[in-house]
Amino acid sequence: KWGIVSAGKISHDFVACLRSLSSEEHQIVAVAGKNFGTAKAFALLHGIPKVYGSYEELAQDGDVEIAYVGCLNPDHYKTSKLLFDHGKHVLCEKPLTTHLKHTQDLLRTSQEKKLFLMEAIWSLCNPAYLNLKAQLDKGLLGQVSYINVTFGHASMSQDRVIKKHLGGSAMLDIGIYCLALIDFLYGGDLPEKVQAVGTLTDEGVDIGTAVSMKFSNGRLATFTASLVMDLPNAAEIVGTTGTVRIEEPFWSPTRIETPCGPRDYVVPKTVVPCNYKNSGSLCYEANEVRRCLLGGSIESAHVTHKTTERIAFLTCEIFKQLGVSYVHEPVWLQ
Amino acid sequence: KWGIVSAGKISHDFVACLRSLSSEEHQIVAVAGKNFGTAKAFALLHGIPKVYGSYEELAQDGDVEIAYVGCLNPDHYKTSKLLFDHGKHVLCEKPLTTHLKHTQDLLRTSQEKKLFLMEAIWSLCNPAYLNLKAQLDKGLLGQVSYINVTFGHASMSQDRVIKKHLGGSAMLDIGIYCLALIDFLYGGDLPEKVQAVGTLTDEGVDIGTAVSMKFSNGRLATFTASLVMDLPNAAEIVGTTGTVRIEEPFWSPTRIETPCGPRDYVVPKTVVPCNYKNSGSLCYEANEVRRCLLGGSIESAHVTHKTTERIAFLTCEIFKQLGVSYVHEPVWLQ
Repeated sequence: KWGIVSAGKISHDFVACLRSLSSEEHQIVAVAGKNFGTAKAFALLHGIPKVYGSYEELAQDGDVEIAYVGCLNPDHYKTSKLLFDHGKHVLCEKPLTTHLKHTQDLLRTSQEKKLFLMEAIWSLCNPAYLNLKAQLDKGLLGQVSYINVTFGHASMSQDRVIKKHLGGSAMLDIGIYCLALIDFLYGGDLPEKVQAVGTLTDEGVDIGTAVSMKFSNGRLATFTASLVMDLPNAAEIVGTTGTVRIEEPFWSPTRIETPCGPRDYVVPKTVVPCNYKNSGSLCYEANEVRRCLLGGSIESAHVTHKTTERIAFLTCEIFKQLGVSYVHEPVWLQ
Repeated sequence: KWGIVSAGKISHDFVACLRSLSSEEHQIVAVAGKNFGTAKAFALLHGIPKVYGSYEELAQDGDVEIAYVGCLNPDHYKTSKLLFDHGKHVLCEKPLTTHLKHTQDLLRTSQEKKLFLMEAIWSLCNPAYLNLKAQLDKGLLGQVSYINVTFGHASMSQDRVIKKHLGGSAMLDIGIYCLALIDFLYGGDLPEKVQAVGTLTDEGVDIGTAVSMKFSNGRLATFTASLVMDLPNAAEIVGTTGTVRIEEPFWSPTRIETPCGPRDYVVPKTVVPCNYKNSGSLCYEANEVRRCLLGGSIESAHVTHKTTERIAFLTCEIFKQLGVSYVHEPVWLQ
């Protein structure tokens, strides 16, 4: 049922989660890697029956129903297009693409072809987030009016995150999780104003970004993303009657401090160890995809097409202000 | 030696601190209030020998060496001018004035007349801040590269802070402490870029402001000030090798968490209770003023004239971006 595009670290973690779920509900039928040897080793490690040395072959495999796209950022667009051309549903790693217009094109294609498409913002499928939102909607903090989020890891040694041709960018790599949390907690409202500052590499890739945003009803938000330094990686959420703190790592939390005391969450265990912190929560994302496919939905209610478009739109606006080279004029479709 | 201009709440706290220090080092010779009755009651409470019903009379009092200006924000400029005209040294509450050009005029006047002038950003005289800075300069966190500060109190019921004719503004009332801390920790460097968002009242007073700033060497800062809601009121300071947290209230802290463990500070006790939280630390400011006067300095090394000008300049730039009505084109003098 699942085809895995690319045999890198994040694909490893996602597959580790798929294997930890019921094998009747999630089957991995194939993996494709540009380097056949790497893909072969990946398949051996995870017991995946079919291995391909190109994404095209996987796209043509009639057994694959849904493809997980975990390749490098600049390849997300054309790979997702290719998969759509062959009638596959797509779960694509964030950022869906590196350009707003490409993202909008993919969303349109999904709708035209009636094929499922979801950007893998896994945090938004996490019960910790969903429970928190339900509590906030019930008035846990009165009106939520301030959010600060930081996401920073010293990772300048990783070419993938800092080189332009590899799709590098603090915003695209990690800032997107900050933006997604703010968007989620403010109910998908677009900000009235966004103001960004950032530091760029010589080739114009953002490696440190600080953003302030204003929403309706006096609501404010700030976030900072950095590839240069380790930040607190927590989220502070202030409402008219109290404060919530999502402890590090806020994108896959195990503890949320609320005015009613702490709420603890357990990250699902995986059959093999993961590369990234608390990646076990990718299980929630995998189950959400399955639920949508069984229900015949082409989008998830947790990461809707509009959610993806908003985040891409805001990222594009931030890039424009920073002078990041991925930028073109941001246009909001509807 | 001290003359107290205005008999309001903050003047009360400052006088409470003066009275808690050695009476040989700090004498309060007079208090002036626009309302004579209030000033009279203030003098009685604090045992101050002379009472005036106008600031002019206090300015003319030959016994007064240094005046503490604690009146409403819009009166700071002309009151300080008046005091200078009568040869008095001046410690004036923040904001020094509500307009950058007025602030620059006062700084110039102080230099021309060789009279002491200090903006009462008392935090900067606090040993907690000075010790922290000394530790940071010794490399406690490597290079400090991220600062987030929040200062927010639900105080919309206080006309003083929200009405334009009374000098209201979240930035002027409390945001200035955030800005001062960032300026202090980043060694007085001007940011390369400042980006602000904010919410305004109908008459154009900022009541909620979120700012992101970029400094040289990839350093970032964000701060949020609000008159609408209670914020965490703490500061997070991240360097290349660790993190410091100045716990609430960051402007007069009792605890600073460092990688070497917490550092605790005791707020000086006062002979009468204060109105504002941890106001006892105004003692440090009072002693700093005395030290400067004894040494013949016209400015404090902790809150230099340039510090005051930078903060006024940045406030002016932020006001410009927000559309706040105090604004005119910010011009940096030197």
